Amino acid sequence: MPTTADSLDAVLRDYRDRVNARLAEYMQPADDCPPRLREAMAYSLLAGGKRLRPMLTLLACEACGGDISAALPAACALEMIHTYSLIHDDLPAMDDDDFRRGRPTNHKVFGEALAILAGDALLTLAFEVVARDITPPAIAAACCADLASAAGDCGMVAGQVVDMLAEEQGLSTVAELEAIHRRKTGRLFTCALTLGGRVASATPDQLTTLKKFGERVGLAFQITDDLLDVSGDPEKMGKGVQKDAQAGKLTYPGLLGIAESRRRADLLIDEATELARSLGSQSQHLVSLARFVGQRDH
Amino acid sequence: MPTTADSLDAVLRDYRDRVNARLAEYMQPADDCPPRLREAMAYSLLAGGKRLRPMLTLLACEACGGDISAALPAACALEMIHTYSLIHDDLPAMDDDDFRRGRPTNHKVFGEALAILAGDALLTLAFEVVARDITPPAIAAACCADLASAAGDCGMVAGQVVDMLAEEQGLSTVAELEAIHRRKTGRLFTCALTLGGRVASATPDQLTTLKKFGERVGLAFQITDDLLDVSGDPEKMGKGVQKDAQAGKLTYPGLLGIAESRRRADLLIDEATELARSLGSQSQHLVSLARFVGQRDH
Repeated sequence: MPTTADSLDAVLRDYRDRVNARLAEYMQPADDCPPRLREAMAYSLLAGGKRLRPMLTLLACEACGGDISAALPAACALEMIHTYSLIHDDLPAMDDDDFRRGRPTNHKVFGEALAILAGDALLTLAFEVVARDITPPAIAAACCADLASAAGDCGMVAGQVVDMLAEEQGLSTVAELEAIHRRKTGRLFTCALTLGGRVASATPDQLTTLKKFGERVGLAFQITDDLLDVSGDPEKMGKGVQKDAQAGKLTYPGLLGIAESRRRADLLIDEATELARSLGSQSQHLVSLARFVGQRDH
Repeated sequence: MPTTADSLDAVLRDYRDRVNARLAEYMQPADDCPPRLREAMAYSLLAGGKRLRPMLTLLACEACGGDISAALPAACALEMIHTYSLIHDDLPAMDDDDFRRGRPTNHKVFGEALAILAGDALLTLAFEVVARDITPPAIAAACCADLASAAGDCGMVAGQVVDMLAEEQGLSTVAELEAIHRRKTGRLFTCALTLGGRVASATPDQLTTLKKFGERVGLAFQITDDLLDVSGDPEKMGKGVQKDAQAGKLTYPGLLGIAESRRRADLLIDEATELARSLGSQSQHLVSLARFVGQRDH
């Protein structure tokens, strides 16, 4: 039976609920954690959102024949790292954003010092839950190494730095833009998928397929993000649109035009769905998620 | 043969050289790491210093009969986490310090944004080297979990938050002061020791002894830090003295007087040396290091 849009929605809603429930568990009060710190962490971590990275982890695990319950800690870790990066990116010293997902940013509510520390704590907690809650330990260690490599100085943080330097120096080619996104968004997307695969004891071939899938979905996600900034609905986005254009930031529509950007995103999603299909019959939800990324309107 | 001060110095110098050499390796240029980011990370990480936490890791490993080479990644990870915490603590939004170890602080040289990101990258790299370079993977996973727990929202970051809130609200008892230091400094000291023990496949009893040793040495370290702020030599310290007193910060000498603080530190070091001795004949350097912490003048 093919997955209809409705049944995919129901599955994703169920999986998202499970991720949100586990994230809330990880944010429970703890004796040694100052309540104000936990509050600042939870404010951003439990703010909702698409939970796209956690979904990729669970669906990659499922596609490789694994039990998605076993992948929940990895899924939550991905969301913690994504959230910490948003908190730090929003700081006055960085992008200086006042709103995120329709609410005041972390530092606007808790102050800069606590926002920095809440980000640090979420990054650290990501490794704690993977190292402690993924079994067996050999897979936990491999997941920690993957996650750190994707998030660190050759991955997401590198992307952030290159993006920052590019704003100062200017850049002009699609290749330069893709080099930023590959690190800033792509590495964490790819990691979300391989972690799901690792928990399912995926073969090296399956991990390679997941990686290729992640690269394409990550890039398509970024292109649609740029497209939404040009033509999206601010209500649905929960943040201002045309911000990139106003900031003179290099974007896909800016470089390639809207039609060609749309065409590229579609092509990448087509390639991604082919890759996901090659994983076998249990990959139907992963296929559908790729389509969702290509068609999202927020 | 008892360890003389000279031979301990030679051993510590040799071990410190090995830590510094490994840290420098970890800071080698990497294709995907922006040179400016690597530079900002290396600026603080390779700034010298006592390398006290890495020493604790190596000497704990040695005391439990392990090969210190195997503990080097853990030793380096501890220093990376310590360094990231200093970079973030020095930020304008936090302690707003211009100098550290006699040199301008990271954000004074690289700007706030890059300093935040260099700290994030060092924290992330700490988990990468432990997860990837410690063997077997089961020990690597246990080390990652320990490290994250010690550094995170119930450990070092918690200590930083409580310290910050205490400056706003004021605190007045030794118990409150110790509750801060236990998390802000103590947890990472203790973790430095247990990681060394884990790499040496220490028994649960040995790990408990290392933990108790770390709690005492950590507290003694903090008391001597406070004492040095009152009576230390600014040349040797590489930073201003009497800063705490001027900032109206609660300290051991402020609460207990200099003599009683000194007596407490000595008592803690005596307890620590007894604990270290109970680990057996290979613990002589660890015993000596505890004495060094009690007597240090910078």
